[in-house]
Amino acid sequence: MYPMKKKTITHPEKSKKNTRVKEKPVILITNDDGITAPGIRSLVESVRDIGKIVVVAPDKAQSGMGHAITIGQPLRLHKVQMFDGIESWSCTGTPVDCVKLAVDKVLHRKPDLCLSGINHGANHSINVIYSGTMSAALEAAIESIPSAGFSLQDYSIDADFSGARKYARIIVEQMLRTKMEKHTVLNVNVPSIPETLLRGIKICRQAYAKYEEDFIERKDPHGKHYYWLTGEFVNFDKGKDTDVWALANNYVSVVPVQFDLTHYGMKDKLKTWEK
Amino acid sequence: MYPMKKKTITHPEKSKKNTRVKEKPVILITNDDGITAPGIRSLVESVRDIGKIVVVAPDKAQSGMGHAITIGQPLRLHKVQMFDGIESWSCTGTPVDCVKLAVDKVLHRKPDLCLSGINHGANHSINVIYSGTMSAALEAAIESIPSAGFSLQDYSIDADFSGARKYARIIVEQMLRTKMEKHTVLNVNVPSIPETLLRGIKICRQAYAKYEEDFIERKDPHGKHYYWLTGEFVNFDKGKDTDVWALANNYVSVVPVQFDLTHYGMKDKLKTWEK
Repeated sequence: MYPMKKKTITHPEKSKKNTRVKEKPVILITNDDGITAPGIRSLVESVRDIGKIVVVAPDKAQSGMGHAITIGQPLRLHKVQMFDGIESWSCTGTPVDCVKLAVDKVLHRKPDLCLSGINHGANHSINVIYSGTMSAALEAAIESIPSAGFSLQDYSIDADFSGARKYARIIVEQMLRTKMEKHTVLNVNVPSIPETLLRGIKICRQAYAKYEEDFIERKDPHGKHYYWLTGEFVNFDKGKDTDVWALANNYVSVVPVQFDLTHYGMKDKLKTWEK
Repeated sequence: MYPMKKKTITHPEKSKKNTRVKEKPVILITNDDGITAPGIRSLVESVRDIGKIVVVAPDKAQSGMGHAITIGQPLRLHKVQMFDGIESWSCTGTPVDCVKLAVDKVLHRKPDLCLSGINHGANHSINVIYSGTMSAALEAAIESIPSAGFSLQDYSIDADFSGARKYARIIVEQMLRTKMEKHTVLNVNVPSIPETLLRGIKICRQAYAKYEEDFIERKDPHGKHYYWLTGEFVNFDKGKDTDVWALANNYVSVVPVQFDLTHYGMKDKLKTWEK
């Protein structure tokens, strides 16, 4: 179905035995908190010896941008010095723009892996749809680039990334060893607890949970109303195979995510509408 | 799983026989091209006698915004006179913000239906992920509100919406008659051909197709580079049950869409990572 040339990705430790890949994999790293966020630094540090790392990330925070792309405005790329010895670019666009620009104008090829994060704040359950971090990774999956988004369940700028860092590396090594299915991205979330208390990886499904919106209403100095989005997270899903359950039970949750949104059961049911 | 009270939605023509619903359904209408776009006017006109219509739509074009929400800035709502006799609000936020604000601050309840569009330009295949039109409708589905996004395969401001208008009405009437599954949204696309040539409705799956990016590179008057996103649409999917096939064959495509992105096949395969 997909007419690209096949490319074999091999773990670099095995590359001597396999003559098809001689160089380290090219790993594109991005995020949605911006290139200066501590989380992306943790991700770079956790995998920097595994591959040839190139960073293309937003120049400012882009949380909640979902799968937004920039159509009506031009984009800029600036080469920056952020991570010692790592080629890095800041981009004026969204996380998805970063992946598109990286492939077309920075790498001039598809990377062997795309990693996004580590996000400051969890992206479990329905957050996969709102999250710029996950949308960047999903964009890579649309391009048939094996990818993963990483998030830590702590919004703080001073969050302790040591556990997330450890598991990001474990999972990237697994990805390089495993034949990943095309068009699949991993949504990895790490509980905010000391590294020693993490109980390992749980492969999960996306929980059905959502935010109960409650906009705060204020008046500006001219008497006009404005609204701030706030909301309470509510989990409606009692399943023990969900990402929300895994995080609450001190596991690192891994949800394999795909982008065919068709509801196949409903598709059959609606056939009577054809006439 | 979802602890809300059940509500029965009945087609208004049948409501005399059914005492459970006495009033016309409340229909929220939004879009991503902005409240002044001809497409949303066509949608309002096509269904205005079916329900009590309330419009909450962006005050400017928001194409390509995907599922973006506004976190870091306040939002404004302005009551406007756009459609004769229809309560209408323009909103400074994204399409998804419009749905959230409409439920919480305009309607103070969930509408019985949420309709988004009619979009200027198709939203078949992968566009479901980038499209603000579809994201607004998907947001409603997350809230268990039956919803649909409508798009016409013509970007022009002067596009002929007569066929799209006709089918929007047919589909809304079907939705009111059918027990729609919770958390499902319909992605409806209409080919840009004369109404008389439309061959009817096809229930489809989302095609695997994508854009091959090709950023146009320019220099500003100060010699610095900037990039414009362009791309060629490429369909890799030969299936005759896809939305792309249906549109190419003069059918109105209807894809039922859901938001559990879990790749269940891959979930089983990755179980070996748990340890």
